[in-house]
Amino acid sequence: MMKKIPVGVLGATGSVGIRFVELLVNHPWFEITALAASERSAGKKYRETIQSRLTFELPAEIGDMAVQACEPGLPCRLVFSGLDSAVAGGIEKAFANAGYAVVSNSKNHRMDTNVPLLVPEVNADHLGLVVHQSFGDGMIVTNPNCSTVGMVMGLKPLLDNFGLEAVHVVTMQALSGAGYPGVPSVDIIDNVIPYIGGEEDKMETEPLKIMGRLNKDHIDYIELPISASCNRVAVLDGHLESVSVKLKTKAEPEELIRAWNTYRGEPQELDLPLAPQQPLRYFTEPQYPQPKLHRDLGKGMVVSIGRLRKCNLLDYKFTVLSHNTVRGAAGGAILNAELMVKKGMLGSV
Amino acid sequence: MMKKIPVGVLGATGSVGIRFVELLVNHPWFEITALAASERSAGKKYRETIQSRLTFELPAEIGDMAVQACEPGLPCRLVFSGLDSAVAGGIEKAFANAGYAVVSNSKNHRMDTNVPLLVPEVNADHLGLVVHQSFGDGMIVTNPNCSTVGMVMGLKPLLDNFGLEAVHVVTMQALSGAGYPGVPSVDIIDNVIPYIGGEEDKMETEPLKIMGRLNKDHIDYIELPISASCNRVAVLDGHLESVSVKLKTKAEPEELIRAWNTYRGEPQELDLPLAPQQPLRYFTEPQYPQPKLHRDLGKGMVVSIGRLRKCNLLDYKFTVLSHNTVRGAAGGAILNAELMVKKGMLGSV
Amino acid sequence: MMKKIPVGVLGATGSVGIRFVELLVNHPWFEITALAASERSAGKKYRETIQSRLTFELPAEIGDMAVQACEPGLPCRLVFSGLDSAVAGGIEKAFANAGYAVVSNSKNHRMDTNVPLLVPEVNADHLGLVVHQSFGDGMIVTNPNCSTVGMVMGLKPLLDNFGLEAVHVVTMQALSGAGYPGVPSVDIIDNVIPYIGGEEDKMETEPLKIMGRLNKDHIDYIELPISASCNRVAVLDGHLESVSVKLKTKAEPEELIRAWNTYRGEPQELDLPLAPQQPLRYFTEPQYPQPKLHRDLGKGMVVSIGRLRKCNLLDYKFTVLSHNTVRGAAGGAILNAELMVKKGMLGSV
Amino acid sequence: MMKKIPVGVLGATGSVGIRFVELLVNHPWFEITALAASERSAGKKYRETIQSRLTFELPAEIGDMAVQACEPGLPCRLVFSGLDSAVAGGIEKAFANAGYAVVSNSKNHRMDTNVPLLVPEVNADHLGLVVHQSFGDGMIVTNPNCSTVGMVMGLKPLLDNFGLEAVHVVTMQALSGAGYPGVPSVDIIDNVIPYIGGEEDKMETEPLKIMGRLNKDHIDYIELPISASCNRVAVLDGHLESVSVKLKTKAEPEELIRAWNTYRGEPQELDLPLAPQQPLRYFTEPQYPQPKLHRDLGKGMVVSIGRLRKCNLLDYKFTVLSHNTVRGAAGGAILNAELMVKKGMLGSV
Repeated sequence: MMKKIPVGVLGATGSVGIRFVELLVNHPWFEITALAASERSAGKKYRETIQSRLTFELPAEIGDMAVQACEPGLPCRLVFSGLDSAVAGGIEKAFANAGYAVVSNSKNHRMDTNVPLLVPEVNADHLGLVVHQSFGDGMIVTNPNCSTVGMVMGLKPLLDNFGLEAVHVVTMQALSGAGYPGVPSVDIIDNVIPYIGGEEDKMETEPLKIMGRLNKDHIDYIELPISASCNRVAVLDGHLESVSVKLKTKAEPEELIRAWNTYRGEPQELDLPLAPQQPLRYFTEPQYPQPKLHRDLGKGMVVSIGRLRKCNLLDYKFTVLSHNTVRGAAGGAILNAELMVKKGMLGSV
Repeated sequence: MMKKIPVGVLGATGSVGIRFVELLVNHPWFEITALAASERSAGKKYRETIQSRLTFELPAEIGDMAVQACEPGLPCRLVFSGLDSAVAGGIEKAFANAGYAVVSNSKNHRMDTNVPLLVPEVNADHLGLVVHQSFGDGMIVTNPNCSTVGMVMGLKPLLDNFGLEAVHVVTMQALSGAGYPGVPSVDIIDNVIPYIGGEEDKMETEPLKIMGRLNKDHIDYIELPISASCNRVAVLDGHLESVSVKLKTKAEPEELIRAWNTYRGEPQELDLPLAPQQPLRYFTEPQYPQPKLHRDLGKGMVVSIGRLRKCNLLDYKFTVLSHNTVRGAAGGAILNAELMVKKGMLGSV
Repeated sequence: MMKKIPVGVLGATGSVGIRFVELLVNHPWFEITALAASERSAGKKYRETIQSRLTFELPAEIGDMAVQACEPGLPCRLVFSGLDSAVAGGIEKAFANAGYAVVSNSKNHRMDTNVPLLVPEVNADHLGLVVHQSFGDGMIVTNPNCSTVGMVMGLKPLLDNFGLEAVHVVTMQALSGAGYPGVPSVDIIDNVIPYIGGEEDKMETEPLKIMGRLNKDHIDYIELPISASCNRVAVLDGHLESVSVKLKTKAEPEELIRAWNTYRGEPQELDLPLAPQQPLRYFTEPQYPQPKLHRDLGKGMVVSIGRLRKCNLLDYKFTVLSHNTVRGAAGGAILNAELMVKKGMLGSV
Repeated sequence: MMKKIPVGVLGATGSVGIRFVELLVNHPWFEITALAASERSAGKKYRETIQSRLTFELPAEIGDMAVQACEPGLPCRLVFSGLDSAVAGGIEKAFANAGYAVVSNSKNHRMDTNVPLLVPEVNADHLGLVVHQSFGDGMIVTNPNCSTVGMVMGLKPLLDNFGLEAVHVVTMQALSGAGYPGVPSVDIIDNVIPYIGGEEDKMETEPLKIMGRLNKDHIDYIELPISASCNRVAVLDGHLESVSVKLKTKAEPEELIRAWNTYRGEPQELDLPLAPQQPLRYFTEPQYPQPKLHRDLGKGMVVSIGRLRKCNLLDYKFTVLSHNTVRGAAGGAILNAELMVKKGMLGSV
């Protein structure tokens, strides 16, 4: 058994940070050696900073760790970033410049020319961008917005097999996507909020890069009109999306379902620890998938699809579900890091 | 002050039936003289059959009324039907044949050639179909499915002013739309159910009749491709819908907003009791409308619209909200009856 | 019709403050002439500071009012305070010293010797304390904690008729009681939080003063052991409480019910605008009262009681419900002010 | 490894039945060989009867099993009963008379003189009653009502160490306790229902038997006044209870906490598969335990306690949480059966 790789978590006291810790505890390859957060938390025991929000058993040694400031000098060379976008940009650059491999869930560098925006099942080859980064030994790799991931994983097999001409998506997104404290309870119980700032723009642009083609030092974006409408609903975890697609070539429903169910990417070939054997799962029951029932499939890494049927405007419509803080955030980022380990990119870590 | 018109409620113990009673109590024109329901409730005091579900003060004389069987012979000539579709078809016909004016919220006769499918602000003239019915003195008039009404009211001003080429809609529908007991709580708390049986078909077909043109004894349907995806969310009342439209003629956002805000129909001209002065209201706040905040506007009869913005696929997208058991059911049906009174169709009632 | 009395609201942008505004708009005696809040809001239009949280139609002239700082100089002599307890103490004193009548919902001065802690139906005579205050023309009058009010109103008729030896209460409190933004939605959906800081102490001590006897310049507290356990549940408005009592003299259930249903206080005798004709209402249905169904009775000013039955430890147990931001906060404070008007205490206002 | 014991589940399509199946799949000692339910389901594949309510991955061979009628003849000699109480009484007797060991979660036989009402950590010796039953080779063993279990486990260490004179409990119970479909969503969202039929009586009487003393062929009940008030809240799983106790001997808070944390019973000594190592866990954080955070501790078999503090009426008060369908129903019943296996009572099974 190999020696575990020491890792740090930036923004460890936020909701994505806590999820990072949950998924890294007992991880077969990684070992948490540093937890960093804002000045306000620095110096305190990690346990005390997150106490009221823990939903899993925190190992004593992690709970007792002193939270550090988000500055290079942490005892590791790989850091996961769940930092708030208000500060992530500069801090992540500082870490990369100091030689750290930064695997970030924040939006700040996602669309930077040299930075891979990675969904390992979809565009593992985009990691090739990293050699064009100018951080010395350091690097930055990102994963997309939580609502983008599920949709893109549902779209990629269709793109590969039938081509895509247009996509329409309406989301019903979970509360954990808004961080902590996030949405006040008096605003969302018995309610839907039909607006999430900045979200629709991310869903309409990020997929163009993710499904684009690596061209040396940059990505040639795919051309694909996407229209997104984002809503917040009273669900704790799991983003549900009603998707309509126009295909380039005619296809029968069974062909789409087969494309989803048989889809495999590098994480499956490399048998990465967090990779589900079958990353996409199609349900034939008409009322599936549902957030409460299916968000935790494959430890939250499976994307569930259902309700495939003809669309009167485009060709087909269907429903996609993915766990927004696992597959759509911390889990996705860790899968990125697992891929980077297997590719030898963290060899010197 | 005119003498009140005696009315009966069929299916009075169901959730739509209770809403009928709530809206008819204190109605300036109508007076409840009969409450009818299934065999199981017949003979009991009305209060006892609905006790645990009352959200308003039931007048003593209504609560003490004995529930009757759903058979002609009720002491009135106008009946409102909130019957379950499993039985509504036959019962409503029997009442019409017996000379009753049946104003129904049930789906059974909505698409019948001679039966008006009415949203009074939109197609009051369709009442002209009634003379072609073959019920003698009786008649049947219907209102659309709860999720259809809000959408159609949002679409009609666009159709009139700019023409419509295509509509895409994704709904987030309230629980009261499923009747009582309806959706089990363990199925919907912390969840969304992406399926409502039969609902999408209604939303894709009913508007074609409602916005169609009266042609003597039938309606010439409008041609308009509509694609609907229906979801159930943890909201008590108020259907929220994300709508995208393709227009026939170019238009600026302000023109659409003006078309909505200035829209008036016959209920407004005739100053019907349940008609809101401004039936459509556009909100400029980006996070509006919301079910909890706006469903009760205009006593639940106003349709709220917001978030107008460009759509990357069609031309525009926006959000529509309407109260599903008021505007979308009992309130809509009563507005139909008010219109029929003013038009003299219930003159002999 | 008398000229309306100009009033100000301190803390107007908080959740209690907004409720004050809602209840004062259209009030027959009072007219809002000043809205004051923290530095952060001062200078902005009122509408802009509360926009996303409005649940009622804000009149244009109120929405356009500029929010002022919380300093004496407001154009009125009566101010309602919904200030946060972190700042209420000093600000309220400053206003009283400047000659204002301060009617406060904040906890800071509730237990001050000279300050009435008022539930008008229960202890209207405690207003006699005011003449012993040393604020010159100014004065401070308070109402109790939101969870105290409903319980005390349920207890007072029992105390008057049968005497009280002990009280045990467990609360299930609504989210609006925590202010805004209050409880994060991810903490309370599918959950109960069995702790509300400081709440149990208030429920165990405030009633002793409220039900105490005015003795010149102070209140002689009643002796009564109360044990309170406070829980937060996923309810928007309305505190529900399971209460057990030990009486001093034996009584039949019907006697308790009659004591509640026939209870009247000065607000009823004086026919104050916000006073419900019957302040306490007993329900015979076993599953009543419920927050969603009964919190709004009497415009939120009625306290609902139900489920009276024998207690195996004490004598009786029952369930009490009251609207926490109306009867338990803003509505209660306004009722205090109405009483003060009728008593001529605001004569020079 | 021993050969697995074949078991059947009666009422397999109800909510407790489904939980039985979930906990029996992969059980180290038991193997499901029969699933039985009402006539309506008999003959269908198990998967089809429960499809929309599954929250775990149902193994194909279990899903394909044909549901049988609830009549002796099932291929096993141990049956778990999650039957509705309307039919459980007779069916369970019929199975016992036919030689089956019936381990039941239903209420019907709980208070029968010869039937153990078992919480294995508390009264394992009560199994001695079984030899006095008159079912031949068959037998009936029961577990208590879901709201009783958590309370009794919290009380037993106090009874053993300090004696108990009185208990007061107010519950906030989860929706799954009402079975399926159970509580309609429109009745409980934004609400609390302060009534659960028959529940208070069970909580006031069952503990007297459970904590009683085995006296040959019957149980001498403990004398202990208990007062229970039961409320239904919008929580999916996990009953929370506010408990007050009067002790016979004085004790410091630390002594109570130590009594809980060190409590062990036969399930722990025998290391039964479903037995948590530490059955009671005390939390020092003031806002704990909470249903969402702690119901699943120890696979749902740990009872969580917190908020120990002085009671102004009795001696102490605290909060108890237990998973109502695991520890309080199916899990408790399976633990009973595990105990019976270890005691050799199912030797011939």
